[in-house]
Amino acid sequence: MTQSQSGMMPALTQQMQDCIDACMDCHNICEEAMSSCMQQGGQAQMQIMRALMDCSETTRMCADMMMRRSPMAGEMCAVCARACDMCAEACMSMPDDEMMMRCAEACRRCAETCRAMAGASM
Amino acid sequence: MTQSQSGMMPALTQQMQDCIDACMDCHNICEEAMSSCMQQGGQAQMQIMRALMDCSETTRMCADMMMRRSPMAGEMCAVCARACDMCAEACMSMPDDEMMMRCAEACRRCAETCRAMAGASM
Amino acid sequence: MTQSQSGMMPALTQQMQDCIDACMDCHNICEEAMSSCMQQGGQAQMQIMRALMDCSETTRMCADMMMRRSPMAGEMCAVCARACDMCAEACMSMPDDEMMMRCAEACRRCAETCRAMAGASM
Amino acid sequence: MTQSQSGMMPALTQQMQDCIDACMDCHNICEEAMSSCMQQGGQAQMQIMRALMDCSETTRMCADMMMRRSPMAGEMCAVCARACDMCAEACMSMPDDEMMMRCAEACRRCAETCRAMAGASM
Repeated sequence: MTQSQSGMMPALTQQMQDCIDACMDCHNICEEAMSSCMQQGGQAQMQIMRALMDCSETTRMCADMMMRRSPMAGEMCAVCARACDMCAEACMSMPDDEMMMRCAEACRRCAETCRAMAGASM
Repeated sequence: MTQSQSGMMPALTQQMQDCIDACMDCHNICEEAMSSCMQQGGQAQMQIMRALMDCSETTRMCADMMMRRSPMAGEMCAVCARACDMCAEACMSMPDDEMMMRCAEACRRCAETCRAMAGASM
Repeated sequence: MTQSQSGMMPALTQQMQDCIDACMDCHNICEEAMSSCMQQGGQAQMQIMRALMDCSETTRMCADMMMRRSPMAGEMCAVCARACDMCAEACMSMPDDEMMMRCAEACRRCAETCRAMAGASM
Repeated sequence: MTQSQSGMMPALTQQMQDCIDACMDCHNICEEAMSSCMQQGGQAQMQIMRALMDCSETTRMCADMMMRRSPMAGEMCAVCARACDMCAEACMSMPDDEMMMRCAEACRRCAETCRAMAGASM
């Protein structure tokens, strides 16, 4: 058994692994979208920055907690889902910006998986 | 041109994308390895925890800075390479633990790409 | 008016400033307690590490969100209060360790102020 | 001896404690300055955001590493000093904004203490 030398740490479930991946994808595109917003520098972009910062930080912490098997992971997933909702909505205010549309899509996917994780017993 | 609507933000080079991926991989396995160490709870594991924490944090910040096109990214890569070196060495103290061996390998790969990035003009 | 040149950003309320201070104090002692645990390296210390890591990260993010006037701050305060509760309880398992007792006290104070903030309209 | 029950973890030197305090002060005002920039939303503010984000993150990590007695703390102090320099310079581009002037001052003070720490043997 491959886990035996690591003290029998339980493997991540597929659901949790999918949620971690969705959080990481969302975190990554948020960081890129922040860079794009700062480069463009308009009023609309500034409004989105707040949502991007919150979403970037919560998705990262949420993924880290799942990877660490933290008992707080479930509650963090619930908060993360809300931050993703708000970020998706903010990004939708710039429907002509391709990166914001990709970010909104990643946020929605992450919100969905986080909501499912928060509801599951972890 | 797909970048035009995002204000012409330059695409990440392949070298930078590879370095980001190596940092993220390293960060992720460090988080898992911390969990394993805490579960096992021995003296050797505790000694590794410090290196894992430093490595996990520096790889994450380094990846974020590259994704955000931060002018500090190059300097951060140099620090990150050193944190990875130290973590790889710490993990090697438990050669019978499969996860620590995987972590050491990810650290070495990350150190190598970070060192190359730090040397390149960013 | 001193705020006029900063675009009329509303000043932090005293309640929020107190909560930020409590979060920062708690974060700081958690980082010190982690160092102490890693240095001692016993089984009991390892069990506390998880709670310290979660508490350190949530208090920091919570403080940052309040300082940034994030709309997510209220929800984060609720999660933070729970992480502080768990950390205080974990630290109480080492009643003879002065630092763990100081950490437990900081966690309890932080949990109380965060719970009050989470209940207030932010 | 009060440290005896915490496994003889050496107390922080006054120099290190001062550096931690300077990093925390700088981190905190950076978070507030980001909020102010996002609220104002002008082109100049957007240019400052990048420097504020880098400075906020590096000061936080630097303080955490010192509190944890990380062997990487010295190298991180050197990077942090540079991020503070860049942030102070960016803030100086808005000499009529009181918060940016306070941020520049905190950055300069932090850069100075970090540079001294980086030079000292830690």
